[in-house]
Amino acid sequence: MTKKKPSEQAKMNNESKISNLVLRRYPRYLHFLREQKLKGEENVSASEMSRHLNVHHTQIRKDLALTGVKGVPKVGHNIDSLIDAIEEFLNWKNSSDAFLVGAGHMGRALIGYRGLQNTGIKIITAFDRDPEKIGLEVDGVPVYSIDKMHNLAKRLHIRIGIITAPASAAQEIAEMMVEAGVIAIWNFAPTRLELPEEVIVEHADIYSSLAVLSHKLADKL
Amino acid sequence: MTKKKPSEQAKMNNESKISNLVLRRYPRYLHFLREQKLKGEENVSASEMSRHLNVHHTQIRKDLALTGVKGVPKVGHNIDSLIDAIEEFLNWKNSSDAFLVGAGHMGRALIGYRGLQNTGIKIITAFDRDPEKIGLEVDGVPVYSIDKMHNLAKRLHIRIGIITAPASAAQEIAEMMVEAGVIAIWNFAPTRLELPEEVIVEHADIYSSLAVLSHKLADKL
Repeated sequence: MTKKKPSEQAKMNNESKISNLVLRRYPRYLHFLREQKLKGEENVSASEMSRHLNVHHTQIRKDLALTGVKGVPKVGHNIDSLIDAIEEFLNWKNSSDAFLVGAGHMGRALIGYRGLQNTGIKIITAFDRDPEKIGLEVDGVPVYSIDKMHNLAKRLHIRIGIITAPASAAQEIAEMMVEAGVIAIWNFAPTRLELPEEVIVEHADIYSSLAVLSHKLADKL
Repeated sequence: MTKKKPSEQAKMNNESKISNLVLRRYPRYLHFLREQKLKGEENVSASEMSRHLNVHHTQIRKDLALTGVKGVPKVGHNIDSLIDAIEEFLNWKNSSDAFLVGAGHMGRALIGYRGLQNTGIKIITAFDRDPEKIGLEVDGVPVYSIDKMHNLAKRLHIRIGIITAPASAAQEIAEMMVEAGVIAIWNFAPTRLELPEEVIVEHADIYSSLAVLSHKLADKL
């Protein structure tokens, strides 16, 4: 999460680059918009979104403006248009095939996680070192020996790797992925990866929500 | 994540309330500081943290100032003091017992997740409806029938509930938790919970990092 000085921020916007902070909010918007759509709603106002998502309404307005979808006074924003624009923006409309390494509980949880189907990532194969896991099938996704990853990634032009292995194995796995042509890594192992600068690495940060919870709880006890 | 206008932010600081945005950054700081400590480092500068964590140095300086730990020019901040202050701040020094409902892959992944031991949450019992899971033990944590949750939570004064059940069951489980005295819920189910306002609910948001990854990847392809 990079916080820029105002001058830098303006420069980024001019170059139509979006800060990570903004990007991180979009999945929550999308989730809310899809829920509203399921309820039969057609439009949503920024203040309604603000109330439900606990994000300040000026922030919501700014973020929605970036999608290019214009709101109508007293009516709000069209929900379908917003969903469409945000999915487009996050590149979640085009499904990209991904490899996952580490078919333990975290890996299997992720393969089976319902929400992932709504994102642009499709896990097509999992890999592991454990002979007891190799040969299994998890929700339709086969688990192969990690020795097969390199050739398969090259052959299928896999660009996205997901690491759900233990922290001690993560660096080695990440390097294997990069050698096999992976350019974006989603890392669930609780460790930092040292990789060439051109590789996109995002750390799945389940603790950030826990920090908020713990702090609020401490205030109550 | 609430973004305040400068005037509002100042007001919040005066009231010594900390925004969720700031809180969400602290676990990453803590992780980095513990790594540095393991490497034998005693001090760290804000610019070093900025470089490693990809957060602007003015932001780091502001966040560290909130902990009350003062840096020394040309030396930096004492790592032990920072770890201590952040843990204190997040209430991660006092371990709180928690119940987890849903002993599927996500539940088991969380029970086994190494990093959780460094936070203030200790999962002492898991619950499930599935007869095949009831009676299991996951990394030393027993799985009981969900029917036992109410009495056990009351008896042990459990305040924290973790939901790793499917989205369709999450609301019902959350209500059961609240009836049993839980006041803070960490929700991994991909659904929003409708609960009394005084209940603290935090949604484990694994997709925010995916949004950043997908968007950056789209720029590269």
